[in-house]
Amino acid sequence: MALRAALGNKRALSGFISQLYFNSSHGRVCASTVLAAQQRSNSTSSKISVNFDQSTGVAVMHLQSPPVNSLSLDFLTEFCISLEKLEMDKSCRGLIITSGVPKVFSAGLDILEMYGKSPESCGEFWKAVQEMWLKLYSSNMVIVAAINGSSPAGGCLMSLTCDYRIMADNPRYSIGLNETQLGIVAPFWFKDAMANTVGHRNTEMSLALGLLYSPTEALKIGLVDQIVPEDKLMTSAEQMMGKWLAIPAHARQITKSMMRKPTIDKLTSKREADVQNFVSFITKDAIQKSLRTYLEMLKKRKAS
Amino acid sequence: MALRAALGNKRALSGFISQLYFNSSHGRVCASTVLAAQQRSNSTSSKISVNFDQSTGVAVMHLQSPPVNSLSLDFLTEFCISLEKLEMDKSCRGLIITSGVPKVFSAGLDILEMYGKSPESCGEFWKAVQEMWLKLYSSNMVIVAAINGSSPAGGCLMSLTCDYRIMADNPRYSIGLNETQLGIVAPFWFKDAMANTVGHRNTEMSLALGLLYSPTEALKIGLVDQIVPEDKLMTSAEQMMGKWLAIPAHARQITKSMMRKPTIDKLTSKREADVQNFVSFITKDAIQKSLRTYLEMLKKRKAS
Amino acid sequence: MALRAALGNKRALSGFISQLYFNSSHGRVCASTVLAAQQRSNSTSSKISVNFDQSTGVAVMHLQSPPVNSLSLDFLTEFCISLEKLEMDKSCRGLIITSGVPKVFSAGLDILEMYGKSPESCGEFWKAVQEMWLKLYSSNMVIVAAINGSSPAGGCLMSLTCDYRIMADNPRYSIGLNETQLGIVAPFWFKDAMANTVGHRNTEMSLALGLLYSPTEALKIGLVDQIVPEDKLMTSAEQMMGKWLAIPAHARQITKSMMRKPTIDKLTSKREADVQNFVSFITKDAIQKSLRTYLEMLKKRKAS
Repeated sequence: MALRAALGNKRALSGFISQLYFNSSHGRVCASTVLAAQQRSNSTSSKISVNFDQSTGVAVMHLQSPPVNSLSLDFLTEFCISLEKLEMDKSCRGLIITSGVPKVFSAGLDILEMYGKSPESCGEFWKAVQEMWLKLYSSNMVIVAAINGSSPAGGCLMSLTCDYRIMADNPRYSIGLNETQLGIVAPFWFKDAMANTVGHRNTEMSLALGLLYSPTEALKIGLVDQIVPEDKLMTSAEQMMGKWLAIPAHARQITKSMMRKPTIDKLTSKREADVQNFVSFITKDAIQKSLRTYLEMLKKRKAS
Repeated sequence: MALRAALGNKRALSGFISQLYFNSSHGRVCASTVLAAQQRSNSTSSKISVNFDQSTGVAVMHLQSPPVNSLSLDFLTEFCISLEKLEMDKSCRGLIITSGVPKVFSAGLDILEMYGKSPESCGEFWKAVQEMWLKLYSSNMVIVAAINGSSPAGGCLMSLTCDYRIMADNPRYSIGLNETQLGIVAPFWFKDAMANTVGHRNTEMSLALGLLYSPTEALKIGLVDQIVPEDKLMTSAEQMMGKWLAIPAHARQITKSMMRKPTIDKLTSKREADVQNFVSFITKDAIQKSLRTYLEMLKKRKAS
Repeated sequence: MALRAALGNKRALSGFISQLYFNSSHGRVCASTVLAAQQRSNSTSSKISVNFDQSTGVAVMHLQSPPVNSLSLDFLTEFCISLEKLEMDKSCRGLIITSGVPKVFSAGLDILEMYGKSPESCGEFWKAVQEMWLKLYSSNMVIVAAINGSSPAGGCLMSLTCDYRIMADNPRYSIGLNETQLGIVAPFWFKDAMANTVGHRNTEMSLALGLLYSPTEALKIGLVDQIVPEDKLMTSAEQMMGKWLAIPAHARQITKSMMRKPTIDKLTSKREADVQNFVSFITKDAIQKSLRTYLEMLKKRKAS
């Protein structure tokens, strides 16, 4: 059903592209959220703003790298440093990740880090992507994704690592691992995280076709756990965080590790090979050509 | 959906507690069932009554250890002996497990076997829990759980080992692996049995939050296969047993083994380590303190 | 729900038998389809007709071995040769498999290849079944099953190997791995393919009871991806094929391999042992007796 719907209205590709570049003026709700965040914020880097509330033990992280929160090497580095700081702060028990950029949660991996770059640069970039995934998926904190915009590819991956996913119920937003649409392939650990969430068959069809799902479709297959009106998103995320934090931390953490360790160990044990595999794939002439075609299409669309 | 419902009405913890201790006078339906059972029964121990009907090849096992059918060492020992007897009787092809105690199927592992006990006692207890699970999950008989009351933690585990689960459609009953609510952790083989039933994601969220599901919610995620009005429970269980027994036994047994052997082998090969792990966890000061707090809360509630 | 429905109306067994032998006069729709196929066909063996359209890159394979497209050794051999030819033709990117025989997609493995045969013959037959499965499940082509009739046992297995399954919405048709109903056992790789499609629990119950599902029930558990009115089946299959072929082939193929390789490797590494296992099982006196009983029942039914 979701498949036919997604394919039928051609959201799959055109929706993704249209969300990559758009008017970047901040919307009313987002701007006020960011303002409030900054008033209490105790850590702000250029691309990520972290607002930690000691009284609740919950941090809110706003991704704010316009126009689309692309996961560049710089972004990933800052993200991992921020995450590590929170992880080491014993008083921080929960983290809500959301976007400070309107209409997009994260557009995923920055294609410019993969196009026309040296194998060394590509390898360094890929290690940073792995690092983000490993840190998030194994975090001792409760992590809730408050998905307030589109979340294709790496943006979806980031969501998949969280303990709970709430998405704004806006039909213009979509979420999914759509790599094949670009001629590239989601690696095994993207696949594993998705299969752990929506099962083998949904993952197989979703990855093969590079499907992007509307919030309603995503809820139906379990790609997100809850959808709420956009203006209720942060309140709902905070309420849900309260439920998770009510569970004795030690028992919850051991349980999380039991569920996720086999998947984490798989990447850890194959990490170097996975980097080599990515580098040799992405530097292929045919793949570079695909990426160029895609980038040119984006530029044209932006210009028109 | 189930999560929000379960959390929203605070059934998760309070429901569990209220079901642990309650007025133990037998209800009308249960009392008459037990009476009928005893008329045909050919094996009755103090805690378990087995009623084997030669004409159908089906035995009915009533758990009757008031107030809440806690899985104590004595209970587990008797249970395993009863099960073994049936397993060795070639004329017994099916087993229906139900409760002879009103409102509760089984409240799960007896906390008194884990609190203030020597490591040796804890280890002996844990081996008995493993034994119950291994015997049930690998049984050659068709086993149907007729869940006529709440079934948290070990009670849910017992249900998960059966071939088919029917639950009385009474919204006051709940079922789930709620260990984290008590500050303890469901071991990997509880997790494996649940994941084999409701999938990875439902298991992850369910175990992390220690969720207890109403019959309707349990049906929705597949934690039970069918819900029926309480007074139709045994009839439905018997009808379903008939369907299962119509399948050539040899083919059904090989199929069951093919589905379950990897999960069984995993515990068998790690059995001793799992005992050590349990003992070192449960005898920790912090965990003992959690259990004491919990027991005191139960006492207060019982007294009030 | 599906279980109760399937069992309740006794479709499980009687439906299967009634579909095995029936009036073999071709229906209106099927006859015209076959006619059209033959006009453009570039390969026709006695049991399989292949019609490859260069302009679309899509081949349509009609199974046409009346009365029920049984998977005999001859059929399987021809099938694998046809498949290999298409696989080696770089211009062929997609394959639609459908039946040229009315009311049945395929009745599954030919029992006559397993009854009263030498161990060597049984072994040769089983290798051919493995070969079909391995070739289909690992194909680089997009394969869509257009299921225009009943599809029990091996017919269901064939469907399970495809990338997408569309079934004619005719309540007289059914699909499932019903081996246990005949006293035989679906081997582990049948089970693996089914679990990859509908999950562990659906597979466990389905195989234990040998369930056959109506199109509606099959859609509900994900055993088929889509159901459409019978006269829209081929058009829908072609439309869906278009969606799959729009994805860059290289990325789609790597993704498919990533999803399926562990399951394929499992059979490949145990292939010889699986043959031995099948031969020693199927040549058992008790199993041969089951098959004879079954064959006699079919004959009686045919005669009456």
